[in-house]
Parts: sequence; structure tokens; C-alpha cells
Amino acid sequence: MSAVYFEDIAVGNKTVSGTKKVTKEEILDFARKYDPQSFHIDEDAAKKSIYGGLIASGWHTGAMLMRLMIDNMSNKRAGLGSPGFDDLRWIRPVRPGDELRFESTVFETRKSESRPDMGIVRANVHLYNQNDELVLSLKSTGMMKTRPE
Amino acid sequence: MSAVYFEDIAVGNKTVSGTKKVTKEEILDFARKYDPQSFHIDEDAAKKSIYGGLIASGWHTGAMLMRLMIDNMSNKRAGLGSPGFDDLRWIRPVRPGDELRFESTVFETRKSESRPDMGIVRANVHLYNQNDELVLSLKSTGMMKTRPE
Repeated sequence: MSAVYFEDIAVGNKTVSGTKKVTKEEILDFARKYDPQSFHIDEDAAKKSIYGGLIASGWHTGAMLMRLMIDNMSNKRAGLGSPGFDDLRWIRPVRPGDELRFESTVFETRKSESRPDMGIVRANVHLYNQNDELVLSLKSTGMMKTRPE
Repeated sequence: MSAVYFEDIAVGNKTVSGTKKVTKEEILDFARKYDPQSFHIDEDAAKKSIYGGLIASGWHTGAMLMRLMIDNMSNKRAGLGSPGFDDLRWIRPVRPGDELRFESTVFETRKSESRPDMGIVRANVHLYNQNDELVLSLKSTGMMKTRPE
């Protein structure tokens, strides 16, 4: 199997992921370490909050999206990391038992101006739950190797 | 001690955090769960990568920033979560042994149009390492309760 280089990606390319189940234990574990707000770590307090129950840290939701991306892209993809992303929106809470999946669509590809061996790929990424409700969206930016001459 | 409400926050308000030490174990643990790219989970592969050594997942860096925010804001702050953030940039890699701290400056405050009991606070957030090098920046958006009548 040959590697996937920048030149193999085109505007309009769509990726549809498999699913990831969210457990209460994982929500609590992540939030205790990184985001110990009461509606992420305390079921009773969460019930009384505006969220009406325990919800995942938004950074945890982003981390789960990252894992889905890794698991659903070719391991031959010549990825070089990312300089960042734009317009992250937490649209609906993620709750224990939810099943997450993403769809992403490339909207821009361009060669790096400073590095001829690198290209930039930008995509609209949408994360959905098991009811097909949008829970998170962002515009991703990825760096990829160009095909060796 | 009285609570901190939306009305207590003004444009120009600055928050300077304490520091968080980043360990190799934590980098590996986070990346194995959420971002198993070779430069995050494999020291030998990371040395041969463009990063020249093991670096933290960018989502891990964001999660550590979140924890610093929680630990450095008043626990009386009437926060209601966040609808998202903008313009996240991973500017320099975060490596084992780094010590992270953030500075944030409020650049916008406005009352919610749809919910009179809520205000929106936006801030420029900069995360630095122990050499005062900028490693991450983003524009945060937070929702806060307005002061009860």
C-alpha cells in the first residue's frame, strides 16, 4: 500500500468515521484531571445545573474527536501535525452513553509558501451523537508531506 | 466572600496563572488514549520526526490550559461554561519537563441577547513555557451569570 500524500487530497473529499461510545467513568476521569467543574465531576451538582446532568468536558469531547480522526484515517497518511484550528463550537452537551462519530469535508488545499515539501489541508469537521445531533464543529488545519520527486 | 458575576468583569482585566509541570508519563498517557500519533507516544520515532523528540498532543496542551484556568480562577466565579473558542494556534511544541503558565486579558464583555441572566466574556489567552516562549494561543468565550437583582 502506498502512502497518502498532500497531492492525493482534493477539495470536497469527505471522511466519515466509525463511532466511539462515551462512558461515565471516562467523563469523570478526564474531568478530574483537566476540567474539574461541578457539572463534569459531580452527578448531583450536575443535575441541578443548567445542563440537567453530567456532561463531558468540552476538551474531552475534542480529545475524543481527535481519537476518532486517528482511528479513521489511513495509517499511511503522511501527516505532519497541525498548526491549530478555528471556530470550535460546543453545540450540544455530550453525556454518558452517547455514541460519537464525525464527518469532515475538505474545503481548501494549498502548498506551503515556506516549505515546498509540505501542503496544508483545511476541512470542516462535524461531530454528531447517536441521534444525528451536531455536538461539536470546528475548521481543522493539517500539514501533510508532498509526494517525493 | 461574595460571588464573582458578569458585572464584576471588565475589558482589560488580566489573569496570570501559576505553573503546571508537564511529565513524560502524562504526555504518553494522554496520547495513548486520545492522540496515538508516533511523535506523541514513541520516543524513538519522535526523535526521527520533524519535532526532534517527544511532544505533547495539542489537545493535551489545551486540556492542561483548561486545568490551569480552573485552578487560577475564583471558585466563586459564576461561570456557566463556554460555547466554544476561536483561533487556536499551537505555536511551539510542549515537551517533557516544560512548565506551563497562562496570561489572559479580557477584550469583550456583553450581555446575552437571548438570556438576560447571562453575560458573555471574551479573552485573549496565551500559554507560555518556562522560557517565556509562547506555546499556544486562543480567543476564549465564557458565559457567566449576571448579578441577581
